[in-house]
Amino acid sequence: MTGAVSPGDRVAIALLHYPVYNRNHDVVTTAVTNLDLHDIARAARTYGVGRYYVVTPVPEQRELAQKVLRHWLEGWGATYNPRRKEALEIVSVTETLERAIEAESSRTGQVPKLVATGARGGAGAVSFDNFSRQLKDSDDRFLLLFGTGWGLVEEVTQRADYLLAPVRGASEYNHLSVRSAVSIILDRLLGR
Amino acid sequence: MTGAVSPGDRVAIALLHYPVYNRNHDVVTTAVTNLDLHDIARAARTYGVGRYYVVTPVPEQRELAQKVLRHWLEGWGATYNPRRKEALEIVSVTETLERAIEAESSRTGQVPKLVATGARGGAGAVSFDNFSRQLKDSDDRFLLLFGTGWGLVEEVTQRADYLLAPVRGASEYNHLSVRSAVSIILDRLLGR
Repeated sequence: MTGAVSPGDRVAIALLHYPVYNRNHDVVTTAVTNLDLHDIARAARTYGVGRYYVVTPVPEQRELAQKVLRHWLEGWGATYNPRRKEALEIVSVTETLERAIEAESSRTGQVPKLVATGARGGAGAVSFDNFSRQLKDSDDRFLLLFGTGWGLVEEVTQRADYLLAPVRGASEYNHLSVRSAVSIILDRLLGR
Repeated sequence: MTGAVSPGDRVAIALLHYPVYNRNHDVVTTAVTNLDLHDIARAARTYGVGRYYVVTPVPEQRELAQKVLRHWLEGWGATYNPRRKEALEIVSVTETLERAIEAESSRTGQVPKLVATGARGGAGAVSFDNFSRQLKDSDDRFLLLFGTGWGLVEEVTQRADYLLAPVRGASEYNHLSVRSAVSIILDRLLGR
């Protein structure tokens, strides 16, 4: 064991169900969905991401997420599909972004830099190439923030240390699901 | 109108619910899921893909998929979320891969080359860089084949004109959801 830390090890992700916008730009809490847990955990595990925080202030929603996790980590699902277990092992459910930052800090011994993502972009957004280089060269830890619904609210984006450029496809259409966006962003930053 | 065709225009995708493997390597038919329609249509639309074929031999499953499409294309959903409509407009539901090939041939006037994808790879699998170049340089049309469940059966892979290399992340774990795999593959072939 050399103690060397791979780029993926220095990345964690947080999926925020609050505070996010809805289609009318109101600040809302969205519901946790089963596939957000599975798809994003599998992608995170594939790219060697250290931890995946599912953030919701609603106790019933946290309990629902924990129930899904228990099924696959301890219940019947763990023997039925060990690969699913391996992915979901990196999931933590937290009440707020603050709690996710605390948990990640105590897991790694470093306070992570916050990296906002979103389809809107903004002044000073950092390109994928530049941020990939940063990931390889720096000793920092990073927490990538993803918003459900219509995306992270301004306050979260402004508070972040970095804003990652939006994923552009090959058309003007720019409405990926958060599951697709996470997958593509992890591939661009950590793949190949 | 110059008749110029972009790389995305020359690509269509087909999501096969049969014939695919289950975890025991039996050949099975999987169920159509709502998010397979939405997430993959949104990713396909983002990357300018010409058409997205949802393939299942089960009449009830095709009717279910059509019902979802009608809701977003004609029903209440069309006015509620026009962006979702824009994505789902490129979806066709077909009974077999053969029907998808016929539909794509008559849509474009060219029989598409079949491109198998999968997590297993195989001898002669073409790299993403090489296939991207091919996409830009050739006048062919391509139909990318994705398998649900545990992936496309051998017969389909062997019949294809190309087998695309598997997506490798940054770990030994190699179990992306088909929604993540489609998103990443479209980004690698058509993004940036």
